[in-house]
Amino acid sequence: MIKVGFQGEPGAYSEIAAARVGEPVPMRTFEDVFKAIERGDVECGALPLENSLGGTIHDNYDLMLSYPVEILAETYVRIEHCLLGLPGSSLAAARQVLSHPQGLAQCAGFISANPRLEPVATYDTAGSAKMIKEGGDLTRLAIASERAARVYGLEVLERGIALRLDNYTRFALLGQRNADRARYGLPKEARKVSIAFALAHETGSLFHALSVFALRGINLTKIESRPLRDRPFEYLFYMDFNLPETPDAVERALSHLGEITRMLVRLGSYGTLGDTPLCY
Amino acid sequence: MIKVGFQGEPGAYSEIAAARVGEPVPMRTFEDVFKAIERGDVECGALPLENSLGGTIHDNYDLMLSYPVEILAETYVRIEHCLLGLPGSSLAAARQVLSHPQGLAQCAGFISANPRLEPVATYDTAGSAKMIKEGGDLTRLAIASERAARVYGLEVLERGIALRLDNYTRFALLGQRNADRARYGLPKEARKVSIAFALAHETGSLFHALSVFALRGINLTKIESRPLRDRPFEYLFYMDFNLPETPDAVERALSHLGEITRMLVRLGSYGTLGDTPLCY
Repeated sequence: MIKVGFQGEPGAYSEIAAARVGEPVPMRTFEDVFKAIERGDVECGALPLENSLGGTIHDNYDLMLSYPVEILAETYVRIEHCLLGLPGSSLAAARQVLSHPQGLAQCAGFISANPRLEPVATYDTAGSAKMIKEGGDLTRLAIASERAARVYGLEVLERGIALRLDNYTRFALLGQRNADRARYGLPKEARKVSIAFALAHETGSLFHALSVFALRGINLTKIESRPLRDRPFEYLFYMDFNLPETPDAVERALSHLGEITRMLVRLGSYGTLGDTPLCY
Repeated sequence: MIKVGFQGEPGAYSEIAAARVGEPVPMRTFEDVFKAIERGDVECGALPLENSLGGTIHDNYDLMLSYPVEILAETYVRIEHCLLGLPGSSLAAARQVLSHPQGLAQCAGFISANPRLEPVATYDTAGSAKMIKEGGDLTRLAIASERAARVYGLEVLERGIALRLDNYTRFALLGQRNADRARYGLPKEARKVSIAFALAHETGSLFHALSVFALRGINLTKIESRPLRDRPFEYLFYMDFNLPETPDAVERALSHLGEITRMLVRLGSYGTLGDTPLCY
């Protein structure tokens, strides 16, 4: 089984993505995961790229541009917040509920419907489950993943307590360039391509760049602009597109794009591990 | 002085944005701020739209589409992490440093250079400063804003300890539609326009939409796609553009765009309060 680095505590949602590929290895920061891939300490890393409610995680795009890595596959994890407690605990007897502020906010409806529950903000959802386990107090509950319940020996008192259930995180499974995907159990067939490029901040420059894809019938699935630090007159773009039926068109489109961009990086051509949620 | 809602504890970076307009009023969640604007409990809200390292905050875009509000102005806040301690504390004698996990990660270089400092994750940067104040322990420090130091009576031991100094958050100053900007001390002249629109997920649909702006010489400053929940064959786009010298062109472009979009919402035409960082 290969080793897969992720940022966070055991039981974190990122661990679910990592466990689909191999043995999850918890790390303190996103960058620690990139360093571990570069050194060969882990074969893969599971890094969140975007969340359907929270947005794109630019940190990880910056790191993908700074380390010699490649997207080997993508995978989607549904963020399903559960109410967890020690064996013997109950919602009726509980007095406090711990979670990351975002977890508490996403379950605000549930918390208001149970006014005897005092919300307590913590640094991490899985970390809250860990605190409940270590504290041994039956009147304190946590909001975290079902996986966190298994990791820390807690019980799931309620499932799916968030207001919105369309909460997904898209993870990149990153590895060293030209890694053997088949050996890692990842899809061999590419379905999608991710690139990053920089354009001069001029009227119509993005229109020109998109023409490269539109004229070849290539279907975009993501586009995002970002002001470039230190270079105020350029913009950075992240783009994903579906691999067309004639893969030659990709080479021609990217060669054409290269003529008009100031920088162009291929982040990877890859398949999807597991299901794609309807909203993606 | 008008009241301006923000999400977080006193001393949060959001409070800096709110204080530029009026009297900051702390609230528990982003949605609480929108509700307070709708009810008229506060005249404005200062809501983060995007951070240069962390990305766009989709939650707030969702809320802007759900509540009857308008962007009255934008403002940029530099996220400058400082090392704070009680009067009499020092870096040499400190043993722990508290902050939000993102604050700790952004100051990882500083923390590794001071190995006797044990990093302790908390739910909030300003909340960490509050904990230091309430705890009274001279060996514990916090990473938070200079404003948090003032709010909780702490001293700034070091300034700008993050690895990257190009860390800015862009805030929308939201109010009820057609609010009197001049009375709130906000710029009367619009400089930028923000819109949201939905397109069918078809090859070339975005290219077509962008042509509406490119053909009229309108300069985009932000574009971001997002899969639409519950409507898997449509995409939602957020777009900002500079107000052109001939404002008529905006009406014509948006009327043209309306012909090809499934949904089109104007989020606001507004000016900038304070400086625009070079990277934006």
